[in-house]
Amino acid sequence: MNYPTTILNLIDCFKKLPGIGEKTAERLALSMLDMEEDLLKLFSSSIVNIKTKIRRCDICNNLSEEKLCNICSDNSRNKELLCIVEDPKNVILFEKLNIFDGYYHVLDGLISPIDGINPEDINIESLIKRVKKDNIKEIILALKPSIEGETTSLYISKLLEKEKIKITKIAHGIPLGAEMDYVDSLTLEMALNNRTDISTNNDS
Amino acid sequence: MNYPTTILNLIDCFKKLPGIGEKTAERLALSMLDMEEDLLKLFSSSIVNIKTKIRRCDICNNLSEEKLCNICSDNSRNKELLCIVEDPKNVILFEKLNIFDGYYHVLDGLISPIDGINPEDINIESLIKRVKKDNIKEIILALKPSIEGETTSLYISKLLEKEKIKITKIAHGIPLGAEMDYVDSLTLEMALNNRTDISTNNDS
Repeated sequence: MNYPTTILNLIDCFKKLPGIGEKTAERLALSMLDMEEDLLKLFSSSIVNIKTKIRRCDICNNLSEEKLCNICSDNSRNKELLCIVEDPKNVILFEKLNIFDGYYHVLDGLISPIDGINPEDINIESLIKRVKKDNIKEIILALKPSIEGETTSLYISKLLEKEKIKITKIAHGIPLGAEMDYVDSLTLEMALNNRTDISTNNDS
Repeated sequence: MNYPTTILNLIDCFKKLPGIGEKTAERLALSMLDMEEDLLKLFSSSIVNIKTKIRRCDICNNLSEEKLCNICSDNSRNKELLCIVEDPKNVILFEKLNIFDGYYHVLDGLISPIDGINPEDINIESLIKRVKKDNIKEIILALKPSIEGETTSLYISKLLEKEKIKITKIAHGIPLGAEMDYVDSLTLEMALNNRTDISTNNDS
């Protein structure tokens, strides 16, 4: 004897989600028994819609319900700035800060030969085309400080070295408020290598 | 700028589930973008079905897709044994062990006046009727060792004290394999109070 089939199916579906194990899947599935019918209907339809309604923006590869995403269809932003991110989640991260008013280009991950992800798999080609066509002055590489992130940054900057644009990388170092004792050695090394000059009285 | 509406809806739905916060809801919703369409359809239909197809068993209050659950409709089990559990999850727990072949009675939680849950709210009445009508020899109270569990056990045993049936409670004590150092003091006290005599050479 086990749960009725409907519940077993739901548990199996939950188990397919990242980080959800047997016990959690069971708990989540059973908690749905107490949910209101309207909410369950919305949940159910949202899941179906995610495949049918959501597409990628034709220009920047961001998630969108239209041909162009909200950002690319907004003409009031700074057309000279382009921020390169690894996935659509990062666009939202920056947008929530409300400090960047340029446009984005969303890669499909990072170059990682060990996982079989090569430069041609991550939407770099359309980035290069876009840079050559549009009047972009600065590209900001906002990729993860990992081997894959650095490789991808390097690859993109190599491809664009002949173009007359500024290529920058967001700063990697010690996060604000972090206890120095708990910062890992690689971060510390990176922070040391990327130190900035703050001397006010510079004779050199 | 934020995610497209469909994704926002899905994130909101996930946030309604127990133990799922903003970040996890976002991660789960976005992970669905990579799921296969068949799985999403099954997920979606299971969610709708959980409200329409799942009901409670007329006899024992267990989850079921029919009038009677799989256990109550199985005539080969021991009709003299009735195990009282707090919710349908516990039925599955016991069934997976494959050590109990009686029937179950599923309460709708435990008596907890502080949360406004009174004896009449948790399906005790149908238990009493069932015990009086059927030829049950032993009732096993398999409730949580908490104030609410003890209160509920006491309440049920009081109601049934005039019936000629054995009422037992599952043992509460130190779990197998536990390090004594890490057992909390209440469990230790309970284990001491519920000690069993194992002397082979008993003069008394």
